[in-house]
Amino acid sequence: MKEVAIGIDIGGTNSVYGIVDREGRCLAECTIRTDKYDDVKDYVKELSSAIKKLISAYSDKLDVKGIGIGAPNGNYFKGTVDFAPNLRWRGVIHFADLFKEHFEYPVILTNDANAAAIGEMIYGAAKGMRDFIVVTLGTGLGSGFVANGEMIYGHDGFAGELGHTIAVHDGRPCGCGRNGCLEQYASATGIVKTVKEFLDKTSAPSLLRGAFEQGGNEITSKKIHEAAIAGDKLALGAFDYTAKILGRSLADAVAITSPEAIILFGGLALAGDYIFVPVKKYMEEYLLNIFKNKIKLLPSRIASANAAVLGASALVWKNIK
Amino acid sequence: MKEVAIGIDIGGTNSVYGIVDREGRCLAECTIRTDKYDDVKDYVKELSSAIKKLISAYSDKLDVKGIGIGAPNGNYFKGTVDFAPNLRWRGVIHFADLFKEHFEYPVILTNDANAAAIGEMIYGAAKGMRDFIVVTLGTGLGSGFVANGEMIYGHDGFAGELGHTIAVHDGRPCGCGRNGCLEQYASATGIVKTVKEFLDKTSAPSLLRGAFEQGGNEITSKKIHEAAIAGDKLALGAFDYTAKILGRSLADAVAITSPEAIILFGGLALAGDYIFVPVKKYMEEYLLNIFKNKIKLLPSRIASANAAVLGASALVWKNIK
Repeated sequence: MKEVAIGIDIGGTNSVYGIVDREGRCLAECTIRTDKYDDVKDYVKELSSAIKKLISAYSDKLDVKGIGIGAPNGNYFKGTVDFAPNLRWRGVIHFADLFKEHFEYPVILTNDANAAAIGEMIYGAAKGMRDFIVVTLGTGLGSGFVANGEMIYGHDGFAGELGHTIAVHDGRPCGCGRNGCLEQYASATGIVKTVKEFLDKTSAPSLLRGAFEQGGNEITSKKIHEAAIAGDKLALGAFDYTAKILGRSLADAVAITSPEAIILFGGLALAGDYIFVPVKKYMEEYLLNIFKNKIKLLPSRIASANAAVLGASALVWKNIK
Repeated sequence: MKEVAIGIDIGGTNSVYGIVDREGRCLAECTIRTDKYDDVKDYVKELSSAIKKLISAYSDKLDVKGIGIGAPNGNYFKGTVDFAPNLRWRGVIHFADLFKEHFEYPVILTNDANAAAIGEMIYGAAKGMRDFIVVTLGTGLGSGFVANGEMIYGHDGFAGELGHTIAVHDGRPCGCGRNGCLEQYASATGIVKTVKEFLDKTSAPSLLRGAFEQGGNEITSKKIHEAAIAGDKLALGAFDYTAKILGRSLADAVAITSPEAIILFGGLALAGDYIFVPVKKYMEEYLLNIFKNKIKLLPSRIASANAAVLGASALVWKNIK
């Protein structure tokens, strides 16, 4: 029998679920809508029966070792999702318990950034590492810190909020109610804000100004990347500005946990050298001497097509040993 | 036979060593000069024979379980002290190996702030906690981060440099060659710098201005504390300024490791409410919502008379289990 783990990534609009083997091969992956259920129990019931079908449809006999769930605001200790702004169900949702009503397997839940970190540890760029940081540069900035080979969940399960450290005093307002949080600068949406600020502040020509003014086409981090490839100075400046703020914050994070590597993941990380080269430069510039030229800055090695499900499934292998 | 650990705290001028039992009682403590030996081997030899005498002089039979050493720039993994600016011996000094030439016991070495953290975990304010931070506010700012019940040494043994995170962009120059490090503000020497700046910037009356201008009497954090007790506005302002910068940095550290408590230790922490009350206030103000009113801010519970030796000795109990 083939040993497999089920991975579920709960997003605001869709949930992705799949079957993953120990080597990180995704044997099957499907999607259901998250946002069409008034009652969370109906959602869990529907998703559970879909997972059961997926398992039974698979030709080989499968030995399912557990279910790993990645979700925004997920709490590892409690198996809950607490006050997630992008889910339609309010308050504290006991997802792990709800899924246990449908399955005999262990159910392990954490937030999506922690799941990504464990994914890198089990299948990806952090394989064999005991001390590293994964930073996801998506809509926000998520992070997972691993020390001594263990995820840092912290006392209450909410550790790893690097995105909500204050990167710029009295800086941009953040959804959390404070100002200057790192994720307002270093994320796929953060760099868009930077470009908009740059466009407003100067009259310098830019491919992005055109795209923006011709209406309809919202600027995205992907378009900024494309403009940078085309040599657009404003886009390149936005990458430099983003990288300086991120590099500085990473240097501070290094001073605290002294990782072997920092792995960048998510939409903005897909800009490759346009983000990695300046982030590395600024991080080195700001690093305390004893850390200089020691910290690897690496791209994710989780196949991006199945990244969310792979990360979630890795929770199972990490927990069952 | 009584189980004991030997604790050694290596300072630039003096080294303190002592015998400590499992409950954190210091059975004996002595001091030798650190700075009078040209060759580090002579220092280790002298200190080792002094320790042996101390053990044999003790009336009960002692079962020595190991030697714990706290030292500036100490590296847990290598058992070395690397490039300590306040020791007369240059380069990398293999203290653990040197002591092992004189003893059969396990020898465990780490930096002084990490030793303080383990001291709090074994005997002090962090007893029973698995996630906490110890911050030592002395000449500099040292820190030890514990997560999942384990010290975060990091990949290379140099984790916990909270004092060298950048608290003020383009701020005060630091001995590390960079600017704005937290320890330039939040430490016994940092608050003295703040008072000097305040005295230079204004002509407001202050007890400290008098003390300073009447010559000879250098301002110390203790004198600033005394002035604050006497209601001196400039001194109170300096505590507020220090606390704001420290509280802000602690809020960022909480976002990363989500500790149960932060323990303040060292000279500046002796100012009690004058530092704890405003630090707590500013930390809460800057904390991300999910952490508000959850994080304990505690004074050390290690007897300050023997603190350094107790911290060092705790390494033994932590490591032998």
